Amino acid sequence: MNIIFIGAGNVATHLAKALHAKKQHIVQVVSRTTLSAQKLAESVGASWTTTPEEIEKADVYIYAVSDSALQEVIRRNPQKKGLHIHTAGSLPLSVFEGEMERGGVFYPLQTFSKQKPVDFAKIPLFIEANSATDRELLQNLADSLSKKVYAADSQQRQQLHLAAVFACNFTNHLFAVAEQLLNEAKLPFDVLRPLIEETVQKTTTMSPLDAQTGPAIRHDLNVMDKHIAALTAHLLWQDIYRLISESIQTRK
Amino acid sequence: MNIIFIGAGNVATHLAKALHAKKQHIVQVVSRTTLSAQKLAESVGASWTTTPEEIEKADVYIYAVSDSALQEVIRRNPQKKGLHIHTAGSLPLSVFEGEMERGGVFYPLQTFSKQKPVDFAKIPLFIEANSATDRELLQNLADSLSKKVYAADSQQRQQLHLAAVFACNFTNHLFAVAEQLLNEAKLPFDVLRPLIEETVQKTTTMSPLDAQTGPAIRHDLNVMDKHIAALTAHLLWQDIYRLISESIQTRK
Repeated sequence: MNIIFIGAGNVATHLAKALHAKKQHIVQVVSRTTLSAQKLAESVGASWTTTPEEIEKADVYIYAVSDSALQEVIRRNPQKKGLHIHTAGSLPLSVFEGEMERGGVFYPLQTFSKQKPVDFAKIPLFIEANSATDRELLQNLADSLSKKVYAADSQQRQQLHLAAVFACNFTNHLFAVAEQLLNEAKLPFDVLRPLIEETVQKTTTMSPLDAQTGPAIRHDLNVMDKHIAALTAHLLWQDIYRLISESIQTRK
Repeated sequence: MNIIFIGAGNVATHLAKALHAKKQHIVQVVSRTTLSAQKLAESVGASWTTTPEEIEKADVYIYAVSDSALQEVIRRNPQKKGLHIHTAGSLPLSVFEGEMERGGVFYPLQTFSKQKPVDFAKIPLFIEANSATDRELLQNLADSLSKKVYAADSQQRQQLHLAAVFACNFTNHLFAVAEQLLNEAKLPFDVLRPLIEETVQKTTTMSPLDAQTGPAIRHDLNVMDKHIAALTAHLLWQDIYRLISESIQTRK
């Protein structure tokens, strides 16, 4: 099976290398950036181009470009046959409609950074396709990389992406807030590490809903008032404190 | 050194047992609840009482009671000599003023649940005292339990507690939100686990401020609008989404 990668960023690089390691044939890499295209192409033994109009014929086209660029590059791809797959969490399968006959989605739920190697075996992969045949093709491709392959339609995938924003992007920001609050008190972020690890660890044995601790769930207004008063230099965080506390108290 | 524990809840139980294991003499346990007092007293070879007025003479009194009960139990304790230590994150050292000559704080930064054993060696301990002598006594007591002992005044400790609320209590709530969003899409919370682990792992090698990913930091309004639209059944979470996104965008 011949595969062409459209995109040479983090997702494309990790995914192309992982498929190459599983003896899949990556025949071409397409990227606006010459250097990225060249570098990824070399590492998987493929040719490369910076012009979508020069995309060759293949069995599978994997798009790993930014959400905003996807639609245009689909339109500019002269190869309308074959299976066209995107890797975006928040875009529906229907982005291929009117352009390609066979569309699919292959969404790896992980953050990739270029330097850091990833173990695809542990990354949950979410697949979607228009036909049973293509679903099977995607399932096989995904099974060859990961032990955690899920079928998810576009709506499930969007909800998944939203859940990931809360559980990961927003969580990371709360860590950043905590880091600055600690800096202001001349304490290192490291002091929080055991507590953070325990918080994450707990969710493996019980639902986060049941694991909730802290002043909000105890309705400890005395402590909450002190905390809100301590945030007068950070009005936005004061509002965040109030809203999350309210949400904690409404859930039970 | 003779120690009396006032309180027999989670913090008292874990701390008393840890000190007992280090050959400290726990001579009495004081708790409103007969069963708790009796149980903890037995496990550390101490006597017990439910009446603060019956508190005996000792070198150190460790208060591990709820914030709201602390002031009253200090007042009712007839023993005004010795070192009186509380274990609360958000209460100042000054709660002892006017009642006891020697006050101190011994604050372990961890959530304790009764069933689960804890390894005190890894728990950051924050100590505070009014005199150099008592500071040293507390330092020695803390050093015997943990490798991570910090001096922190009442203001630092309150800021620490606030940071912990953001990094742990609020983070746990975001996990609960994510879990419900996934439930609605008939997906298990487990699919998020690798991404959560990566989010936490990343903070060991870079500041959370630099590790930020997601639609908000990319100013991806297209995705953000879709997410906010998907939250119409959860208006409070919609507001939380908007505020945290705004905070992410303001920080950089």
